[in-house]
Amino acid sequence: MNEKLYALLDNSFDDMVSVRRYLHQHPEVSFHEKNTAQYIQDFYTKLGVEFRSNVGGNGVVARIEGGKPGKTVALRADFDALPIQDQKDVPYKSTVPGVMHACGHDGHTSTLLHLAKAMNELKDELSGTYVFIHQHAEEYAPGGAISMIEDGCLDGVDVIFGTHLWSMMEPNTIQYVSGPIMAAADRIEITVQGAGGHGASPHQTKDAIVIASQLVTNFQQLVSRRVDPIESAVLSIGSFVADNAFNIIADKAELKGTVRTFSPEIRDLMESEIHRIAEGTALMNNCEIDVTYTRGYPAVVNHEKETAFLRDVAQDVPGVKEVIETIPQMGGEDFAYYLEHVPGTFFFTGAQPEHPFPHHHPRFDFDESAMSSAAKTLGAAALAYQNQ
Amino acid sequence: MNEKLYALLDNSFDDMVSVRRYLHQHPEVSFHEKNTAQYIQDFYTKLGVEFRSNVGGNGVVARIEGGKPGKTVALRADFDALPIQDQKDVPYKSTVPGVMHACGHDGHTSTLLHLAKAMNELKDELSGTYVFIHQHAEEYAPGGAISMIEDGCLDGVDVIFGTHLWSMMEPNTIQYVSGPIMAAADRIEITVQGAGGHGASPHQTKDAIVIASQLVTNFQQLVSRRVDPIESAVLSIGSFVADNAFNIIADKAELKGTVRTFSPEIRDLMESEIHRIAEGTALMNNCEIDVTYTRGYPAVVNHEKETAFLRDVAQDVPGVKEVIETIPQMGGEDFAYYLEHVPGTFFFTGAQPEHPFPHHHPRFDFDESAMSSAAKTLGAAALAYQNQ
Amino acid sequence: MNEKLYALLDNSFDDMVSVRRYLHQHPEVSFHEKNTAQYIQDFYTKLGVEFRSNVGGNGVVARIEGGKPGKTVALRADFDALPIQDQKDVPYKSTVPGVMHACGHDGHTSTLLHLAKAMNELKDELSGTYVFIHQHAEEYAPGGAISMIEDGCLDGVDVIFGTHLWSMMEPNTIQYVSGPIMAAADRIEITVQGAGGHGASPHQTKDAIVIASQLVTNFQQLVSRRVDPIESAVLSIGSFVADNAFNIIADKAELKGTVRTFSPEIRDLMESEIHRIAEGTALMNNCEIDVTYTRGYPAVVNHEKETAFLRDVAQDVPGVKEVIETIPQMGGEDFAYYLEHVPGTFFFTGAQPEHPFPHHHPRFDFDESAMSSAAKTLGAAALAYQNQ
Amino acid sequence: MNEKLYALLDNSFDDMVSVRRYLHQHPEVSFHEKNTAQYIQDFYTKLGVEFRSNVGGNGVVARIEGGKPGKTVALRADFDALPIQDQKDVPYKSTVPGVMHACGHDGHTSTLLHLAKAMNELKDELSGTYVFIHQHAEEYAPGGAISMIEDGCLDGVDVIFGTHLWSMMEPNTIQYVSGPIMAAADRIEITVQGAGGHGASPHQTKDAIVIASQLVTNFQQLVSRRVDPIESAVLSIGSFVADNAFNIIADKAELKGTVRTFSPEIRDLMESEIHRIAEGTALMNNCEIDVTYTRGYPAVVNHEKETAFLRDVAQDVPGVKEVIETIPQMGGEDFAYYLEHVPGTFFFTGAQPEHPFPHHHPRFDFDESAMSSAAKTLGAAALAYQNQ
Repeated sequence: MNEKLYALLDNSFDDMVSVRRYLHQHPEVSFHEKNTAQYIQDFYTKLGVEFRSNVGGNGVVARIEGGKPGKTVALRADFDALPIQDQKDVPYKSTVPGVMHACGHDGHTSTLLHLAKAMNELKDELSGTYVFIHQHAEEYAPGGAISMIEDGCLDGVDVIFGTHLWSMMEPNTIQYVSGPIMAAADRIEITVQGAGGHGASPHQTKDAIVIASQLVTNFQQLVSRRVDPIESAVLSIGSFVADNAFNIIADKAELKGTVRTFSPEIRDLMESEIHRIAEGTALMNNCEIDVTYTRGYPAVVNHEKETAFLRDVAQDVPGVKEVIETIPQMGGEDFAYYLEHVPGTFFFTGAQPEHPFPHHHPRFDFDESAMSSAAKTLGAAALAYQNQ
Repeated sequence: MNEKLYALLDNSFDDMVSVRRYLHQHPEVSFHEKNTAQYIQDFYTKLGVEFRSNVGGNGVVARIEGGKPGKTVALRADFDALPIQDQKDVPYKSTVPGVMHACGHDGHTSTLLHLAKAMNELKDELSGTYVFIHQHAEEYAPGGAISMIEDGCLDGVDVIFGTHLWSMMEPNTIQYVSGPIMAAADRIEITVQGAGGHGASPHQTKDAIVIASQLVTNFQQLVSRRVDPIESAVLSIGSFVADNAFNIIADKAELKGTVRTFSPEIRDLMESEIHRIAEGTALMNNCEIDVTYTRGYPAVVNHEKETAFLRDVAQDVPGVKEVIETIPQMGGEDFAYYLEHVPGTFFFTGAQPEHPFPHHHPRFDFDESAMSSAAKTLGAAALAYQNQ
Repeated sequence: MNEKLYALLDNSFDDMVSVRRYLHQHPEVSFHEKNTAQYIQDFYTKLGVEFRSNVGGNGVVARIEGGKPGKTVALRADFDALPIQDQKDVPYKSTVPGVMHACGHDGHTSTLLHLAKAMNELKDELSGTYVFIHQHAEEYAPGGAISMIEDGCLDGVDVIFGTHLWSMMEPNTIQYVSGPIMAAADRIEITVQGAGGHGASPHQTKDAIVIASQLVTNFQQLVSRRVDPIESAVLSIGSFVADNAFNIIADKAELKGTVRTFSPEIRDLMESEIHRIAEGTALMNNCEIDVTYTRGYPAVVNHEKETAFLRDVAQDVPGVKEVIETIPQMGGEDFAYYLEHVPGTFFFTGAQPEHPFPHHHPRFDFDESAMSSAAKTLGAAALAYQNQ
Repeated sequence: MNEKLYALLDNSFDDMVSVRRYLHQHPEVSFHEKNTAQYIQDFYTKLGVEFRSNVGGNGVVARIEGGKPGKTVALRADFDALPIQDQKDVPYKSTVPGVMHACGHDGHTSTLLHLAKAMNELKDELSGTYVFIHQHAEEYAPGGAISMIEDGCLDGVDVIFGTHLWSMMEPNTIQYVSGPIMAAADRIEITVQGAGGHGASPHQTKDAIVIASQLVTNFQQLVSRRVDPIESAVLSIGSFVADNAFNIIADKAELKGTVRTFSPEIRDLMESEIHRIAEGTALMNNCEIDVTYTRGYPAVVNHEKETAFLRDVAQDVPGVKEVIETIPQMGGEDFAYYLEHVPGTFFFTGAQPEHPFPHHHPRFDFDESAMSSAAKTLGAAALAYQNQ
C-alpha cells in the first residue's frame, strides 16, 4: 500500500509544484483567504471528494472514507499568507503587492491537496477515515484552529499529524521532538500618546518618537536581565509607526510586537514586566502609554507516544534523508489547540534551499522537493496509524 | 491716509475672517496648492488688480501702483498647509482628511488679500508701488521663496515686510528683533537597513526597529553633550516608520527629522555629528544606515535699520497692544531668502487664543482679531516707508 | 562501613559548624588565602594526616591510604572568599571589612575536613586511597585548579567528586545532571577613554560616563537580539567606576564584567559582538574604548557514567531528602579542569536557609545541616567507588 | 599713581610666578586649605599688613588703609584646589596625589597677594581703604563666600571686583558682561538601590549598574527635549561609582553631578524633571532611586554701572590687549553672593596657553603673563573707584 501511495505522489510531484507556485503568486493575508479557500474547494470538487467549506471561517475540511473500517486520522495544513512585500526574483513571485507566502503555507496546502488526491485514488483499499484540515489564519491570533475545532473539524478524530516545511533545516530531514516544539506566541500593541507640536519647539511637546524609542530600548533589558538565562523568551517589536511630516514632533507612536515563551511562569513574567516598563517610561515622560497584551497560541506540546510513533514511521519513508530529534523553535503555531483535544504530533520537514532565508523574510523560499517528503511522511503515518 | 486705511480694514474684518475660515476648511499641502492659488487669483481678478500667476510654481504676485511716484514696497504672505489631521472641534475645521492649516498661513493670506483690497481702494491717493507676494510652499524645503525670487518677484523692490501670526504670543502684540529671528532649518532623512525575519528568531536578523530606536536615543546626546550650552540647536525626528505585521522583525526603518540652528558653526557640527552617530550605530549593529542631510532655509536675519523702522511704526498702530523686543524662535522660514536680496524685516503678530496650542499641533488655532493688527501694521509700514 | 562513617560524621557535626563559622568570620579573598591554608594544614597536622602545602599556590592536598589496596578517589573543596561586605546580622558575621564567604566555600572546607577526619579514623578498614583537594582561588580566574593540577594534585587519581552547597535549593537534596552543569565564565575589562573637563562645558569634552552608560545599555541588546533564544548567555557588568568630583566631566570610566555561556559557538559570538558594540560606541563618540576579554573557566561537563553512579549512591544516604535531576547553572566553576583530566561529577547539595539570598549576595547564608548531607554523600561515593 | 603701581607689579612679576608655582605644587581641596591659608597669612605678616584669619572658615582678609580718606574697595581671590590628578608634565606639577589647581585659583591668589604688596608700598599716597578677600572653598558648595560675608568680610565695603583667569580666552584680554556672567550651579547626588547577586543570575537581582546607566542615558533627553532651545542648561554626571568584583551584580550605584542654568524657571524645571526621570526609572525597575538636589551658587549677576566702569578702566591698562564684551559661561562662582550685598562686577582675564585645556581638565594650565594683566586691571579699578 505504501509503495502505491509513494508512486502516486511521485507522479503528481510536478502538479504539486505547479499548485504551490500558483498559490505563491496569489497570496492572501490571514482571515482574508477567500480565493485560496475557493481554490481548495474547487480542487476537491474536481476530485469528487466530499468537503465542508466555511468551517470556522475560511476553513475547508475534506473527508475520505476508506473501504474498510478503522481509525480516524486528521492531517492539517494552513493556507494564509503574510503582509510582506515579496523581494525574490523568481518567475512565481507574488503578484499581490505587500502580500507574500513567506512561511511556506502554500507548500503545506499543495502537499496536503496532493496527498488527499493520492489517498482518494487508493481509498477502496484503505482502512479508516482521513480528515484533511485546510486551516485558514494561522499567522494571526486568535488563529483559525480554535474556530475550526469549535465548528467540529476534530469530531471523531483519533489522532492528528501536521508538519511545517522549514527553510533553515537540511532538506528532506524529518525533525521531531516530544514535549514543547513551538512557543507560546502573544501579541502586544502599544500606543505612546505624547503631545505633538512644531519640530523646532521640543519643550512645548512630549515627543512620542523619542519616548517610544526609549521604550524599545528599555525592553531589551527584559530578556537580558529579568528572565532566567536557562529559560527562553523573546520580545520583538515588529512595527513602529509615527508617520508625520519631517518638521513636526509626533504626538503619537504605535508599536506592535510579539512575545514568545515556553514556560507559563516566564510568560506571566514577560506580560507583567512589559506593563511595568511601560508604566515607568510613561511616568518619566509624563505621558500616557497604553499596552494591550493579547495572549495568543499556547506552546505546541507534542504527545510522547505519537511523537515516537511518527519518528519510527519516518525512518522508512523513501526520500527522507534523516530523522533527527530537534530543539524547540520560538515560533508560535495554533496547531497547539488541536493537541489540546486529541493526541498527535507536529514535526518539521527540512526544506532548506540553496540560498536560505529565515521564515517571514522578504526573500523566503524553500526547496520544493521537501513537499514530497512531507506528503509521504504524513501519508505513511496516517496509514500506519490504523495498526496502532 | 492711515486712518482711511484702518477704517477700510475694520470694515472688511468680517470678510477677512470668512476668507480665512474658507481657506482653513480647504487646506492644501506644500507644492500642491493649486486651488488656493486659484482662489487668490480670483480674489484679485474680482478687485481688478493686476497680478502674475504661477510665479516660481504656485506663487501669485499682485501689484498696485499708487497715483504718485515713490518706492516699491513688497509685503509677503505664505499660503500652504501641513499634512496634519485637524483635531479641533470648530465649524471651520479642515474638510480635507490629514491636511490642516496648523501654522496660520490661512490667516496670513486673508490678511494680505484684504490689505491689498483696502490699498487698492486708496490707490489714487498713494505714492509708490506695492507688491503683494503670495508665496506657496513655505513649509517644505526648498520652499517657494527661492523660485519666486528667481522668477522676478523682487524685481524693483526697495524693501520687504512680512509677519507671522503667533499662537503662543499675547494677541495683538507686535514682536520684533534685529538680527536672527528664526533659525536655519535643515531636513534629515535616514534609512536603517537591517535584515528582516520572523519575530521569534531575532538572532537571524538585524532588527531595524531596535537599531533605529537606539539611533533616536543616541541622538539625544548631540544637543545635551556636544553643543555649547550657550548656543541653540534642535534635532527632532518627526517621523519613524517601520510598518509591518506584529510578528515580523523589521528589515527597514525610515526616519525623517529636522535640525534647527542659528550659527553656521553649530549647523556644521550638527550635520557632521549626525553622520558620526549614524556610522557608529551602523558599525555596532553590522548594518547600513543612510543619512541624507538637506540644508533648508538659512536663518532669517532681520536688517537693523528696517527693524527699528518697523518697531517705531508699530507703536502708533491702533489695536496694537504692545511692541516688544522678542527672542529668536527655533522655527525656520524661507523669508530668509528675501532678506538676502533686499532690506526688510520679519516680525511676529501675537495671536494667542483662549486655549493656545503650539504651531503644527493638531489643535492649533489663533485669535482672528490679530489679523487686523497684522494688516494695519504691514499697511502702516508700507505707507510710512515712502517717507524713508 | 557506611554506617560507621555516617555516625562519625553525625558526632562531629557540632565541630563542623564551629569550623565553618570560624572560617566565615575570617574570610580571605582569592589568591590571598594564607591564613585559611594554614588553618587547614593545622587541622591535618593535628589529625596526623599527611598533606602537601603550597600546592600550585595556597592549595593543600591531604592523602589517606586505606588499609587495603584499591582505587584512588579525589574529593575537592574550595576555600577562598569574596570582596563583598558582609551585611548579615549573625554572631558569626565576617570580621574582615569588605570580605565575606558569600558563596559557601567555608562550608565546603569544613565539610571536607571533617569527612577526612572521619575517614582517617576508619582508614585501616578502608580500601584504596583518598585525596582531599583543598583548592584556593576558585572565585577569580585563572583559578587555583589549573596550577594545582599542574602541581600534581590529580596524579594517580581515578575519579573525582565535588559538590557545591546551594542556597537556592531545598536543603539536603542532592541535585545532579549529566553533561554541562555550570557555565563557561569569562571576564571582561573595559576602559572608556573620553576627554575630561569642567562639568559646565560638555561640548569641550567627551563624557566618559555618558559613553560608558550608553555602552552598558547597548550591551543589553546582545542577549535580547543576537543570541538564539534557545541558547543561554549572560553578560553582566559588575563594576562601573568613574570616581570624580561632582562638577567634573569624567575623562575615563572603567567597567568590569562577566560572560557566561554553555556552547562554544555562543561564547565566540559573545566575545566578537562585545568587541563590535564597543567599536561602534567608540566611533559614535569619537573616543577610545579598550576591551580585554579574558576566557575563564570552561563549562563544567559532568561525565555520564560517574554522574549516574553518584545519583544511585545518593539515594541511600541518610539525611538526603531527595535526589533530583537539575538544570544547568550559569555560574562558572574551575572544577571544569579536573573533569578534563579524570572522570567524575560535580553536584549541588541543597542548602536553602529560612531567608535565602542568592550566592554572592551581601546577606548570603546557608542551612548548615546541608554540610552533613554533603559530607555523607561524598564519603559514600568515595567508598562505593571501590566496587566500581 | 597708576604708573607706579604698574611698575611695582612688573618688578614683582617673577615672584608672582614663583608664588603661583609654589601653590600649584601644594594644592589643597576645598574646606581643607589650612596650609594655603597659613601661606597667605605668612605673606601678609612679612609685609606687615594687618589681616584677619579664619574668616568664615579658612578665609583670610587683609586690609590696607590709604593715607587719605576715601571709599572702601574689596578685591577677591579664591585659593582652593580640586580633587583631580595632575597629568601635566611641568616642573611645577602638583606634588599631592589626586589634588590639583585645575582652575587657576593659585594664579588668583598670587595675583592678589602681589597686588596687595604693591599697594602696601604706595599706601601713604593712596585714598580710601582696600580689602583683600582671600576666599577658601569656591569649588564646593556651599562655598566660602557666604560664611566669609557672615563673618564680616564685606563690612563697610562700597564696591567689589573679582576676576577669573580663563584658559580658553585670548591671553591678556579683559572680558566683561553686564547681567549674568556665570551660571547657577547646583549639585545632585543619586543613589540607585537595586539588589545584588551573582553575575550569572541576573533574574534574581536588580542590576544597579544597568539601571544607573539607563538613568544617565535618560537624562540626556532633559536638555535635548524639555528645555527651551533658546535657554541654556547643563546636566553633567561627573561621578558614577559601583565598585565591585567583576562577577557580581551591583546592588548599588552612586552618581554625583552638577546642573547649570541662568534662569530661575529653567532651574526649577531641571530640578523637577530630574526627580521625574528618577521616579520613572525606579518604577520601571522596581527599585529605589534617591535623588538629593542641592541648590548651589546662584548665577553671578554683574551690576550694570560697575561693569561699564570696569570696562572703561580696562581700556587704559598697559598689557591688556583688548577689552571684549563676552558671553555668559555655564560655570558657577560663589562671587554671586558678594554681588547680592554690594555693587561690583566679575570679569574674565584671558590666559590661554599655547596648548590650552579647559578648566578642571587634568592637563589644565594657563599663561602666567595674564596674572600681570589681572593684577593691573584690579589695581586700576580700585584706584579709579576713588573718583566715582
